[in-house]
Amino acid sequence: MSDTPQTPLLDQVDRPADLKRFSDAQLIQLAGELRAETVSAVSVTGGHLGAGLGVVELTVALHAVFDAPRDKIIWDVSHQCYPHKILTGRRNRIRTLRMKDGLSGFTKRSESPYDPFGAAHSSTSISAALGFSVARDLGGMTPEGLGDAIAVIGDGAMSAGMAFEAMNNAGHLNKRLIVILNDNEMSIAPPVGALSSYLSRLYAEEPFQDFKAAAKGAVSLLPEPFREGAKRAKDMLKGLAVGGTLFEKLGFSYVGPIDGHDMNQLLPVLRTVKARAQGPILIHVLTKKGKGYAPAEQARDKGHATAKFDVITGKQKTTPSNAPSYTSVFGKTLTQLAGQDDRIVAVTAAMPDGTGLNLFAERFPSRCFDVGIAEQHGVTFSAALAAGGLRPFCTMYSTFLQRGYDQVVHDVAIQRLPVRFAIDRAGLVGADGATHAGSYDIAYLANLPGFVVMAAADEAELMHMVATAAAHDDSPIAFRYPRGEGVGVELPEQGEVLAIGKGRMIQQGKRVALLSFGTRLAEIQKAAEALAARGITPTIADARFAKPLDRDLILSLASDHEALITVEEGAVGGFGSHVAQLLAEEGVFDTGLKFRSMVLPDTFIDQASPADMYAVAGMNAAQIEARVLAVLGVATIGEKRA
Amino acid sequence: MSDTPQTPLLDQVDRPADLKRFSDAQLIQLAGELRAETVSAVSVTGGHLGAGLGVVELTVALHAVFDAPRDKIIWDVSHQCYPHKILTGRRNRIRTLRMKDGLSGFTKRSESPYDPFGAAHSSTSISAALGFSVARDLGGMTPEGLGDAIAVIGDGAMSAGMAFEAMNNAGHLNKRLIVILNDNEMSIAPPVGALSSYLSRLYAEEPFQDFKAAAKGAVSLLPEPFREGAKRAKDMLKGLAVGGTLFEKLGFSYVGPIDGHDMNQLLPVLRTVKARAQGPILIHVLTKKGKGYAPAEQARDKGHATAKFDVITGKQKTTPSNAPSYTSVFGKTLTQLAGQDDRIVAVTAAMPDGTGLNLFAERFPSRCFDVGIAEQHGVTFSAALAAGGLRPFCTMYSTFLQRGYDQVVHDVAIQRLPVRFAIDRAGLVGADGATHAGSYDIAYLANLPGFVVMAAADEAELMHMVATAAAHDDSPIAFRYPRGEGVGVELPEQGEVLAIGKGRMIQQGKRVALLSFGTRLAEIQKAAEALAARGITPTIADARFAKPLDRDLILSLASDHEALITVEEGAVGGFGSHVAQLLAEEGVFDTGLKFRSMVLPDTFIDQASPADMYAVAGMNAAQIEARVLAVLGVATIGEKRA
Repeated sequence: MSDTPQTPLLDQVDRPADLKRFSDAQLIQLAGELRAETVSAVSVTGGHLGAGLGVVELTVALHAVFDAPRDKIIWDVSHQCYPHKILTGRRNRIRTLRMKDGLSGFTKRSESPYDPFGAAHSSTSISAALGFSVARDLGGMTPEGLGDAIAVIGDGAMSAGMAFEAMNNAGHLNKRLIVILNDNEMSIAPPVGALSSYLSRLYAEEPFQDFKAAAKGAVSLLPEPFREGAKRAKDMLKGLAVGGTLFEKLGFSYVGPIDGHDMNQLLPVLRTVKARAQGPILIHVLTKKGKGYAPAEQARDKGHATAKFDVITGKQKTTPSNAPSYTSVFGKTLTQLAGQDDRIVAVTAAMPDGTGLNLFAERFPSRCFDVGIAEQHGVTFSAALAAGGLRPFCTMYSTFLQRGYDQVVHDVAIQRLPVRFAIDRAGLVGADGATHAGSYDIAYLANLPGFVVMAAADEAELMHMVATAAAHDDSPIAFRYPRGEGVGVELPEQGEVLAIGKGRMIQQGKRVALLSFGTRLAEIQKAAEALAARGITPTIADARFAKPLDRDLILSLASDHEALITVEEGAVGGFGSHVAQLLAEEGVFDTGLKFRSMVLPDTFIDQASPADMYAVAGMNAAQIEARVLAVLGVATIGEKRA
Repeated sequence: MSDTPQTPLLDQVDRPADLKRFSDAQLIQLAGELRAETVSAVSVTGGHLGAGLGVVELTVALHAVFDAPRDKIIWDVSHQCYPHKILTGRRNRIRTLRMKDGLSGFTKRSESPYDPFGAAHSSTSISAALGFSVARDLGGMTPEGLGDAIAVIGDGAMSAGMAFEAMNNAGHLNKRLIVILNDNEMSIAPPVGALSSYLSRLYAEEPFQDFKAAAKGAVSLLPEPFREGAKRAKDMLKGLAVGGTLFEKLGFSYVGPIDGHDMNQLLPVLRTVKARAQGPILIHVLTKKGKGYAPAEQARDKGHATAKFDVITGKQKTTPSNAPSYTSVFGKTLTQLAGQDDRIVAVTAAMPDGTGLNLFAERFPSRCFDVGIAEQHGVTFSAALAAGGLRPFCTMYSTFLQRGYDQVVHDVAIQRLPVRFAIDRAGLVGADGATHAGSYDIAYLANLPGFVVMAAADEAELMHMVATAAAHDDSPIAFRYPRGEGVGVELPEQGEVLAIGKGRMIQQGKRVALLSFGTRLAEIQKAAEALAARGITPTIADARFAKPLDRDLILSLASDHEALITVEEGAVGGFGSHVAQLLAEEGVFDTGLKFRSMVLPDTFIDQASPADMYAVAGMNAAQIEARVLAVLGVATIGEKRA
């Protein structure tokens, strides 16, 4: 496999309809070319490699058999969509994946009519496919037509409650609907949970070499003599009448397991299903993540997410880091504390590596709980761990904690149980784009009675907040921190327990006070340096807490300055809104205060580097500086007053 | 069954331990007394009757066999908990159920050590029980000890994704854990979904009269010769090795189905399970909602929720209503519009009656989708219906929409799909208390880019907003309205399509402007009448929209008045915060404005009448009046300035 692969067949493909011209043998060759092109593209962009390699044959087979964009192919999570993008008119932009102004790393409605329903969070595809099926049967329409709806969902994603809810509804509605279970025994981390064990047993008992004759219930699905693969397909459509699988108990027909890398199994099965399916059908496909590219196959994470790399050697081109990541500082600090306090336990929803809990899990395997892609359960489970006298750290990305929001309100906040929420990926996250932005947690947590809500300004602050959370048994407590490297401050031996609801002064100045909540503090400090050159020395404070607010600090900043500007990495409704509410209640606005609250703008910001995204958001040092000047009414040479 | 039942055995029960003295025959008699007492109590309080009557025998059996509060009995949803409350030291207060300062209608940690984990939203019990099991095995502790964890969950609740997530995790962790599936084929509405059909087949195929011998896997659960019931219990522990049920596929042992009204089945099975269970076990119990009280058994909803009633006749004592409920106005308006536009479809999560969609479903059965207790799926399903060219109304209570929050962000808002959210039970809801309050939807929706967020001031406004939502294809749109009766305004023939982002002036006045968002408008108008007596005529406006804000209206109110007060039935972070953000950005605060934002306070408010709850919240007419006087600095005779 070379850096610039030869792709004679792929070169003839502008859109999926072009695949209809190819013979089955050519489709097999095309899959090989598509795999090489995928590897080549990701080698220059970085991104999710393993998942796409695992579905190369499936992607070719789906587009060869079905008729996108009339048929709606919905990729769950959709980090496996790069081969799909290459086949659907986006090959010329595939080397811009995940870059500013480039292709999204996920499917996206606004990007292509071949992406009928975008994704990035897990387990939405069956709900979406069912919606299209129902719309079709009720006379709904899309510009591209409305034919079959096909969800492609991994075994990890299938373990989420949402997928079960959709299956339950689909089995009841009994609409024609195709679900392809892409079973690679590997979502991001090795899968956990009883469903995963069940699937393993299922294919251990029913290896795909062992084609049983279909029993009575299969009749409706069996083909009329139908192309070359019909006999084989008939053999594969087994177990339908047995009703034995979990999926059949939920009202689905079940086909499989079949080898997802064998086009001679995929094509006839899909053709038969297309020709004959009635009601919901689940096709169980076994694949290997990273398939066909040795460095990915051999990697522990099967090439799940990779930096740019050398195609020949597989060696990733990583840039050296200047400071530890927030994630690793969290993981190390919690592990250290857990060594001193055996009540500390940790909960992750299928992200032990992404959250830094891998270290904790290694040292305390019996105290780390990977609940699967199951944030709802994870939060309530944590609440009960707290009720049972333990000190649970419920560790989730901001955007995924949204999945457990009701449980945060109902099981944690109303019961005032001391769950510790470690909220990673706060604020804008870079290449994963809008779907992964952690924009809302400040707003959706800080208005819950009893909650304590903190944001770390740097990695040392994060250590203090982990320690503070560990020691806080009185109520729920959350702390947020961003993706990526810290700012490089010196780290203490141990985190200190902070006083709840107390901020800290960073710099005493005049006229304007900048009140930071989170890691914009570094940009604020840069802005202050630039302002100093203009003779303006702002006061800078780090609020540390959005709840409870440091009333004394805020009111004294308000009374001692002409202007007060809050800055946070979150949407309106959060820290700045709580500060405004305090100032209003205290009558501070009655007599005038130049108050501004810098928050994320009212748009979804596309992928780019975090720095570029914050520039779009208007929240970098230069923009903070400009904001200060505008508020103070300082005209600058060649600049308009804002 | 008389109004004042004779309860000689129940009179001897102060706490569950007292049940240990009774013979099995006496426990059967006790169940009868408990049923009579439950009926008698609810006849004077109103409340959830049918669910409790269905589990009278189960409640007695659980408390006779297990050792609460050391053993943690967790009632899912917990509207079936009244018999449990009677047996656990709360009989003397049982006739204060759901009243101000009375017992909660749900289990509640702060109310009793016998309520180890409160509930009110569905499907949390298995997660909670698993948390206690894990805490126990890790050396966690509670003041009452930490023994077995037992979840009692209905078949409707079992269909929620969260329950599946917990089962999946429990089957994996393999801790000793007891789940009792209380299968009454009836949650609030008749259950829907494939799981429900599956359960029906399960007990159709395996009626509990037909006790098969247990197969090999049952051995570990079988009793040593063990009390009188052992032989019978052994007969009942069937099917364990077959591995055939869905629950066994998820790693649970399965026992059942057994007759949940037959103490001679319940007691030996529970005793055997207590003595022998290892790992997670599911006991499938068949019960009848409303059991043993004829008026409930015969009611369409099996006595699910009832007003006060006459015990002899079952006749409910309802008070005549002065105006239609918001819920019914919504249901009628949507049904009317759907008759004119066949793209309109409706989605409910197991609440067709509570949301007023029953009328719609009757007229358009193929266009109304009850997805089960599955808000996550319901929201994404709605998003796909919109993508498929339909006009879906996703109809949920504010508090339950929290369950689908991530889907609102990720599948609806980011994709800008025109899902119409009809949000019932906005604000404080009365007898259901804090767990059902709709406090957060304004905050958690209004900061999502592209969303339109409305609140109805009265039932005619609601009609306009339904019409506005139906006509709005450009982006997601939500409208909220409270529980209970409207204010009695005249209703138009049809709702009018409102201009997006435009409020309306109600009354032009001076000095102070009151800007309402929602149904506090009526209280504001009362406050204005009282203020008029003091010579103050406030300006009153109805914002209608929290997003997009009516900038012109708000800025002109701010510039024309000394004071501006926003009033909303929601927590901080919502409408008032968005207004404050606008005022700050526009520099209105720079020169002074007496701005106040009246929001729900930072506490969870216990059940009472909505009027009493709003008094606690400080948001009734007198309190609004006082707020105006305080802001304007008007001292009143005999009153302190606030």
